Amino acid sequence: MVKVSLRGDVHEYENGVTPYQIAQSISSGLARVACAAKIDGEGVDLRTPIEKDCEVEILTFDDPYGKKAFWHTTSHVMAQAVLHLFPGAKFSIGPAIDNGFYYDFDVEKPFTVDDLKKIEDEMAKIIKTGLELNKFTMSVDEAKEVMKDQPYKLELIDEHAGKGEALSFYKQGDFTELCAGPHLMNIAPIKAFKLTSTTGAYWRGSEKNKMLSRIYGISFPKKADLEAHLAAVEDAKRRDHNILGRQLKYFCNSDYVGQGLPLLMPKGAKLFQILNRYVQDKEEYEYGYVMTRTPLMAKSDLYKISGHWDHYKDGMFVLGDEEKDKEVFALRPMTCPFQYQVYLNDKHSYRELPFRYGETSTLFRNEASGEMHGLIRVRQFTISEGHLIIRPDQLEEEFKNCLKLVKEVMTDIGLYEDLTFRFSKWDPENSDKYEGTPEMWEEAEGAMRKILDNIGLEYTEAAGEAAFYGPKLDIQGKNVYGKEDTLVTIQIDMMLAQRFGMTYIDQNNQAVYPYIIHRTSLGCYERTIALLIEKYGGALPTWLSPEQVRILPITEDQNEYAEEIKKKLLRCGFRPEVDARYEKIGFKIREAQLEKVPYMLVVGAKEMEEGKVAVRSRKDGDLGAVALDEFIAKLHEEVDNKVCK
Amino acid sequence: MVKVSLRGDVHEYENGVTPYQIAQSISSGLARVACAAKIDGEGVDLRTPIEKDCEVEILTFDDPYGKKAFWHTTSHVMAQAVLHLFPGAKFSIGPAIDNGFYYDFDVEKPFTVDDLKKIEDEMAKIIKTGLELNKFTMSVDEAKEVMKDQPYKLELIDEHAGKGEALSFYKQGDFTELCAGPHLMNIAPIKAFKLTSTTGAYWRGSEKNKMLSRIYGISFPKKADLEAHLAAVEDAKRRDHNILGRQLKYFCNSDYVGQGLPLLMPKGAKLFQILNRYVQDKEEYEYGYVMTRTPLMAKSDLYKISGHWDHYKDGMFVLGDEEKDKEVFALRPMTCPFQYQVYLNDKHSYRELPFRYGETSTLFRNEASGEMHGLIRVRQFTISEGHLIIRPDQLEEEFKNCLKLVKEVMTDIGLYEDLTFRFSKWDPENSDKYEGTPEMWEEAEGAMRKILDNIGLEYTEAAGEAAFYGPKLDIQGKNVYGKEDTLVTIQIDMMLAQRFGMTYIDQNNQAVYPYIIHRTSLGCYERTIALLIEKYGGALPTWLSPEQVRILPITEDQNEYAEEIKKKLLRCGFRPEVDARYEKIGFKIREAQLEKVPYMLVVGAKEMEEGKVAVRSRKDGDLGAVALDEFIAKLHEEVDNKVCK
Repeated sequence: MVKVSLRGDVHEYENGVTPYQIAQSISSGLARVACAAKIDGEGVDLRTPIEKDCEVEILTFDDPYGKKAFWHTTSHVMAQAVLHLFPGAKFSIGPAIDNGFYYDFDVEKPFTVDDLKKIEDEMAKIIKTGLELNKFTMSVDEAKEVMKDQPYKLELIDEHAGKGEALSFYKQGDFTELCAGPHLMNIAPIKAFKLTSTTGAYWRGSEKNKMLSRIYGISFPKKADLEAHLAAVEDAKRRDHNILGRQLKYFCNSDYVGQGLPLLMPKGAKLFQILNRYVQDKEEYEYGYVMTRTPLMAKSDLYKISGHWDHYKDGMFVLGDEEKDKEVFALRPMTCPFQYQVYLNDKHSYRELPFRYGETSTLFRNEASGEMHGLIRVRQFTISEGHLIIRPDQLEEEFKNCLKLVKEVMTDIGLYEDLTFRFSKWDPENSDKYEGTPEMWEEAEGAMRKILDNIGLEYTEAAGEAAFYGPKLDIQGKNVYGKEDTLVTIQIDMMLAQRFGMTYIDQNNQAVYPYIIHRTSLGCYERTIALLIEKYGGALPTWLSPEQVRILPITEDQNEYAEEIKKKLLRCGFRPEVDARYEKIGFKIREAQLEKVPYMLVVGAKEMEEGKVAVRSRKDGDLGAVALDEFIAKLHEEVDNKVCK
Repeated sequence: MVKVSLRGDVHEYENGVTPYQIAQSISSGLARVACAAKIDGEGVDLRTPIEKDCEVEILTFDDPYGKKAFWHTTSHVMAQAVLHLFPGAKFSIGPAIDNGFYYDFDVEKPFTVDDLKKIEDEMAKIIKTGLELNKFTMSVDEAKEVMKDQPYKLELIDEHAGKGEALSFYKQGDFTELCAGPHLMNIAPIKAFKLTSTTGAYWRGSEKNKMLSRIYGISFPKKADLEAHLAAVEDAKRRDHNILGRQLKYFCNSDYVGQGLPLLMPKGAKLFQILNRYVQDKEEYEYGYVMTRTPLMAKSDLYKISGHWDHYKDGMFVLGDEEKDKEVFALRPMTCPFQYQVYLNDKHSYRELPFRYGETSTLFRNEASGEMHGLIRVRQFTISEGHLIIRPDQLEEEFKNCLKLVKEVMTDIGLYEDLTFRFSKWDPENSDKYEGTPEMWEEAEGAMRKILDNIGLEYTEAAGEAAFYGPKLDIQGKNVYGKEDTLVTIQIDMMLAQRFGMTYIDQNNQAVYPYIIHRTSLGCYERTIALLIEKYGGALPTWLSPEQVRILPITEDQNEYAEEIKKKLLRCGFRPEVDARYEKIGFKIREAQLEKVPYMLVVGAKEMEEGKVAVRSRKDGDLGAVALDEFIAKLHEEVDNKVCK
């Protein structure tokens, strides 16, 4: 007998009982929805025999591990359907992924959309049979015999052969698959599925190998869930900055320039300027920052002192070769050591601290090609970087002000409500990745935790995510597909001042080391622009819109009046344009609407005579004719208050 | 007999006559001031025998070549004085340079300021004797015997030995020097001289060799000229941005970052921001530019199309190795090919042209270490770069507008009156340095010349100074030592559009190539900041001053009032600071004055009571107490009108 703890209750079962049997013992309903299980915290197949006392959790589709078992099983069903429809197909692999599953096949010609439809129909037939999946093992020789017509499987079996273990298989009906699992007990729960796309993929991801045909799909236990998912995907695609940002001409790429090096087009460059001036002024006039403008590269010497050469060299673009060249430079991956040189240019007294250095700083990171994504993951980006050189007694207040600044900035651009906070700590198991002693880390992390708790901030914790010189508060945003990235960071650093010999003279006339806060306020401009485009589906708040008002004369007779209106709006500090093309007014309105211009001012003979403008909002449509000054007053209210809607 | 043409008149002389004898034949006065001569345009020593018909020009100190003979002779006199005072000294070389002369000696210990004084005294004694210089030749063996105690001379003689020519010497009194000349006939004309500094210098400039002691000096035929020169040098040093810009904390350098990579400190970064926002807004709102923001690096592919890879690779920072790496990147030396990619992202009609793309663009040029100078010659700099994609019929108007923009910008910052214009043409003798055919160059240069002449611009011409793709109008500034550099450029390019396949659809529905104007408006920000600091001796016009007003409370009781004034000034868009330190008011005023803050507002109990401020101008001193609003009105007038004084 084994003692099994289930949600706190302990039950006794026969030795060798499986999680599926346990689920059945609780209720047939639970057994029906069970997808996988956890034994002592580790994910397993429902068929796994339990041979010692343990804690068991039954996982349904609601659990990520359960989902993967569900999707993985659907992948087998899809392969089975392909077996029926394309008898000559060679089978490669078909795993579950974060959002569904795929399977790669070697077929005579790539699948068509029609093929996918046929495969779906065949899958529906198979699922109706409610086949059970059976798990069993074979020796390498047996496996090779069974898979003798499947060259990719044979390659995988050969790789496994050296390990001396039996090979695990799953079988449903006429389909047998070399597979480690886990899988559902049977295929009946797959009530709703969709094959979403097909594409080419090299065997094992290497372009040296044959190009196979991949089919992506997703499945759910309920039809309504599939529908909701597909609608969400459609919505995400409509908002995806990597599509929409190009359509709206915020940015483009060029094969000649290279991957991860987007070019901001006039609208993108304008949005950058709007955000940048706003942040620079806020930091300077409201938060007491002074600006620096430091070089984008430096000799390796600088990075050796900072520790980046030891801890970060692989991520840097290096110019020259240490063994051949007299001087080796590297493009900067961060601004810290540069701003420290500015601090080091003078002697400082405790009375002068804190110094708050800010810089609109372009940085370079040598990301792998596969990781590039639109404006979110790039090789060159610009951040509002800052370093506060402070006395220890100033730490809490300055840290709080950094956070306050971020909250204000992110609220003004409308992203604050979507952010989450992560306390990123070092990893004592990997201490060689970090500078400093465990005691120093304890002190720095303790200080940050105390401040975070004093503020009452809700945060998660993540070991191994600290900077090499100190703990971070990472402020995380999500893109339209749910992928999380760090948007803003505030870091406590008690180590680098010493490495750089940065001191100040304290009240006892002693030279002592300051603390440093590394922080951003807007974070990476490119990434923020991406998230803004996605959040607003391209219809940015008026105060951020590169073009705020488009004036549309109905005939040529109103062109001059339109230009006058433009001048007046310019004088008020707005960003207006005139569309004086010889086109129908309906066409001009449609185009302005597609380009998500917040306001269109239609001016015909009547409006001109009355000194009015017919206002059209991209959101609410026709708002009727009003005096120009009335429109300006409303626009001021919206823009000056940074209304995000 | 030889026929000698002198200022248009032809005289006959005995064969072998020297320019000195010719000068004597004209007047003893001319002979006295003769320093060197030109025979058929080539500079020669006064002693050179004339053996064929030719044109001769007698050069005085007013001529650069004459000056060099004068300074070179002074250098020999200095060496003679060193021979008298430091008998063990070994002699290296002692040439004339652009501003005087130097001589390098191998002496037991470096010269002191006292030594220089003693050498000057000895030189004065020598010059009083009015010694003649005699020129003669020796064979290598004779020369080695004469110079047997002078190892550096022996090294030079050995190098010369292979050529099989006799060696040229000059001798005055007890001093004999291996020297090619030219020299004065005697040392009497050296009426005024000064040894200006002493420093270490490696033999032959290589750090592998011994460090020698160098003495710099300068000399003039008149005492008043020396005094004027020394005063000018003092003034230049006081204005030199490379000294003053550091003192005033506009910028600094760091050995760890590297040469040619200055760090803009808060004042420099603020000045950069002021200039940059001004230029960006002017270009956008007054001149119809749209902005881009493109990557600072690209794959070599891009530069191969543009031609930079062929014509400019040595000046670029390259990342990676074409033979080893899959992708090779280079930091950009200019923005053109990047902005073209933005143009290429869409199709364009003739109706849309001109496109005026502007970018605040950071560029990188791999300058040799020895050429770095402060903010003027650097490895990384930022310019207001722009490219106008135009129809041929738009060339003249757009070119004129580029020039108008430059004139307005340069007038606003007060540099316009100091600029000169250079029409930089290709060099047909070196056509492989350029793209395109002679016909294409004729067309482009003809178009530019026509425009320049239509405008009535005064300009010089310079062959071999064009860009590889087209002629340039270079707008030149001079630094405080008279060294000229290009500040702004406007270029006509009829070639690159074709290389990049950039077209527009013309009225006949044909795809045709546009012209391109490459231009800057402010040019290099770093260089402009340097010239501004030098021109104004650090006392920048108020509208450009990083700090415009410093409020100085007399006692702590006025601190709050001072802060109120600051807030009010900030709301008006000015840049005020408060000096609330516990220091005497005289000390605070002195410091603000040294830091060249345009206005100091001294506020004591009386001013506070009356709501006034006691205004002090850095230029005119105490201006008396006025109501704050009155001061603000005057400040608005000065700043809004961009008064440069």
